[in-house]
Amino acid sequence: MSEEEIIMENIEEELRQALEARDEETVNNIIDDVHPIDIAIMMEDFSDEEIRIFHQLVDDEKIATILEQADEELQVRLIVSLDNESIIKLFNYMQKDDIVDILGDMPWDRRKAIVNLMKIGDRKTIQDLLGYAEDTAGGIMTTEYISLYCGFSAMDALQKIKEIAPKTEVIETIFVINIKKELIGVVTLRDILTADNDATLESIMEEHFVSVEPEMDQEEVSLLVSKYDLSVVPVINKRKALLGIITVDDIIDVIQEEHTEDMLHMGGVSGEESMDSTLWESIRMRLPWLFVNLVTAFLACFVINVFESTIAQVVALAAVMPIVTGMGGNAGTQTLSIMIRSIALGEVSLKECWKPLVKEALLGIINGAAVGAVTGVIVYFLYGNMFLGVIIFAAMICNMLIAGVCGFVIPLVLKALHADPALASSIFLTTATDVFGFFIFLMLAQVFLPLLI
Amino acid sequence: MSEEEIIMENIEEELRQALEARDEETVNNIIDDVHPIDIAIMMEDFSDEEIRIFHQLVDDEKIATILEQADEELQVRLIVSLDNESIIKLFNYMQKDDIVDILGDMPWDRRKAIVNLMKIGDRKTIQDLLGYAEDTAGGIMTTEYISLYCGFSAMDALQKIKEIAPKTEVIETIFVINIKKELIGVVTLRDILTADNDATLESIMEEHFVSVEPEMDQEEVSLLVSKYDLSVVPVINKRKALLGIITVDDIIDVIQEEHTEDMLHMGGVSGEESMDSTLWESIRMRLPWLFVNLVTAFLACFVINVFESTIAQVVALAAVMPIVTGMGGNAGTQTLSIMIRSIALGEVSLKECWKPLVKEALLGIINGAAVGAVTGVIVYFLYGNMFLGVIIFAAMICNMLIAGVCGFVIPLVLKALHADPALASSIFLTTATDVFGFFIFLMLAQVFLPLLI
Repeated sequence: MSEEEIIMENIEEELRQALEARDEETVNNIIDDVHPIDIAIMMEDFSDEEIRIFHQLVDDEKIATILEQADEELQVRLIVSLDNESIIKLFNYMQKDDIVDILGDMPWDRRKAIVNLMKIGDRKTIQDLLGYAEDTAGGIMTTEYISLYCGFSAMDALQKIKEIAPKTEVIETIFVINIKKELIGVVTLRDILTADNDATLESIMEEHFVSVEPEMDQEEVSLLVSKYDLSVVPVINKRKALLGIITVDDIIDVIQEEHTEDMLHMGGVSGEESMDSTLWESIRMRLPWLFVNLVTAFLACFVINVFESTIAQVVALAAVMPIVTGMGGNAGTQTLSIMIRSIALGEVSLKECWKPLVKEALLGIINGAAVGAVTGVIVYFLYGNMFLGVIIFAAMICNMLIAGVCGFVIPLVLKALHADPALASSIFLTTATDVFGFFIFLMLAQVFLPLLI
Repeated sequence: MSEEEIIMENIEEELRQALEARDEETVNNIIDDVHPIDIAIMMEDFSDEEIRIFHQLVDDEKIATILEQADEELQVRLIVSLDNESIIKLFNYMQKDDIVDILGDMPWDRRKAIVNLMKIGDRKTIQDLLGYAEDTAGGIMTTEYISLYCGFSAMDALQKIKEIAPKTEVIETIFVINIKKELIGVVTLRDILTADNDATLESIMEEHFVSVEPEMDQEEVSLLVSKYDLSVVPVINKRKALLGIITVDDIIDVIQEEHTEDMLHMGGVSGEESMDSTLWESIRMRLPWLFVNLVTAFLACFVINVFESTIAQVVALAAVMPIVTGMGGNAGTQTLSIMIRSIALGEVSLKECWKPLVKEALLGIINGAAVGAVTGVIVYFLYGNMFLGVIIFAAMICNMLIAGVCGFVIPLVLKALHADPALASSIFLTTATDVFGFFIFLMLAQVFLPLLI
């Protein structure tokens, strides 16, 4: 355990003891001293009783800060016992995008009841935000930002910013709008500070800026942020009105989330699963995928069955054939990993598709020849039959060529069909390399059977 | 192709024509209008001749901005033709961390010659920065930041910030130091703007802040940034002196880079490879890994060989045995993906190790029983032999149990040995599931051979 983990554990112990003793002062001191995310992590281990005492001893503003940092499960546990009015009180201290996340996880009727209790202005904003899908720009944007009229002078703007600063999330970037409320530029606090007092925002703003529409997929937004080193992205509608902003800390969460999903999908696991999933959840999420794989395995089994009489005559075939399919799978997975990552980073476009495809095909042939030659020689020495070596050499080249082409084409096709390339590519790839691998090798063996016996 | 890609392509065409015509005005207009990262991407396709003309028509400041955004290959091409004095001129417009990245890729003697041409103060900074490994906090930090003495008033501080702002990267966070030059707090521009004019920085600063040491691995830094939603991280030495800062845009690059590496390593590819790698580079990077896999494949082959006489008597074994090993590999990969991702996100600690290990073992037995039962029934109907079905059922449970335990333990052991779990785990896992899978199944078949014939 690291030093930091030990410290956190001691604090957690202290916090729990203070809660048990209903020691309001100690509890609040700990909360003031420790980052809300660390408090949230500690509270994941809390019992319902401890959470109940926590509500009694800690005021709404602090609970709201912890709620913003909590994971979904803790959020539910923290508010499930509260009545709607208490929830509204908590919400007063929270960012709109965090409120929407919490409401999104609630049953429909409860959500409606809570929204109806809100002030009219808030209600409208929340309802608009709830209208966007969770994984779109609209779903991750916040509505706390500063937008100022383009005719403002730098001095007026600075005064306004000073007034609004305590209430809003981002003050380093100010969004400049014209009389039609269209977003026409962005200006940084730095520009305002260094500008002449009388300069208008219009004269110092940057007119070239990246903006997104609320329907854009969050992964695309994260690619823009990472490409252009943005710290905040305005979300605008078709009439160029500013709807909200996306901040870089939310983008980091998106990137981590999408990475986790890609990684787990590649390994044949649901993106929802984590170390914390229960045994039952894990079974439910993994077993279907194993059954899909079982179909592939039986396809390969049927191919082998067709050549049963050939194997009966040369049993060595049974021992060496998994080498052909295994190596095909490995080579194909190499191609697949590069493709899936390139697709995720938006680096692959159709116009540049032919050259790398030819490269992968050549790579399959060359690597297949290299691996096949070594395998062939070893097999020759093991079984004393040169033709068996030649057959495995030829089969290896064919199967690695298939692996390279399939590893390249399958994720692109899935992407074009709007399926997740990370999820389904490997199953199609393994099917191809197993079925073709066994078929080619055993077919060659059958054709040249007299030479093998 | 997306609308944006078409626009970029047209601009690239326009830029190249302007270069060919040596039309200085058009070239500079395009550079002013387009984001430097987009210019850098266009220039990746440029010929050496085009880059030469580019140097003639565009001034150093603009080239420096593009250089900062360029990938390694383009950086080298952009400066390789320049003499040391011209390079120093370009460096005057660049951030120190970007200069160090470029110098780091140069031959040792050339680097030394250029550093010796720098002003004394710059030389010292650059030499210090060059001393840190590329993938540590020190390697990615920049030295452009604002640090102010804690006794400064908010008004004085604001005045200072206005002066320094044009020259530095981050002005939203100001680092507060005491008389011993120790970093004792951070204060945001927002706090300064809303504070009383006479308030000292010491009275408004935040004393609890996250800092890192220069030796910390960049991946650990990125975990801190993502956990605490930081926008900038101070790097301090053991005496608490501020050495530099790490900005969130660099952290996003780190996260993308580390994820690409994990993904490619999982797939058995070097983290260095990309779509742009040449055929020869790809062969050189992938072939060694395929040979490592070949060793595994032959291990499995030897196991099968041991049971050659058994297979000769029941050829059906050859057809169904790949199902046992294949499904073991699939189940193990599921566990592995979750583990590698959890390790990367810093979610796995040794103290919480036993419960999830037992879970994975149970999961292996339960999923093995489910998949094994279905497989057993199908095999029974295919070959009309109930015992073959029972044997595959038993072998499947054993192999999935092995898969679950190995998928869990292998990455943790590699992590403890300071090896990259993403890189080597899958090869050990496949070795285990293949060798044990074939062994268990064929061993059972041999023991119960009379029942199978």
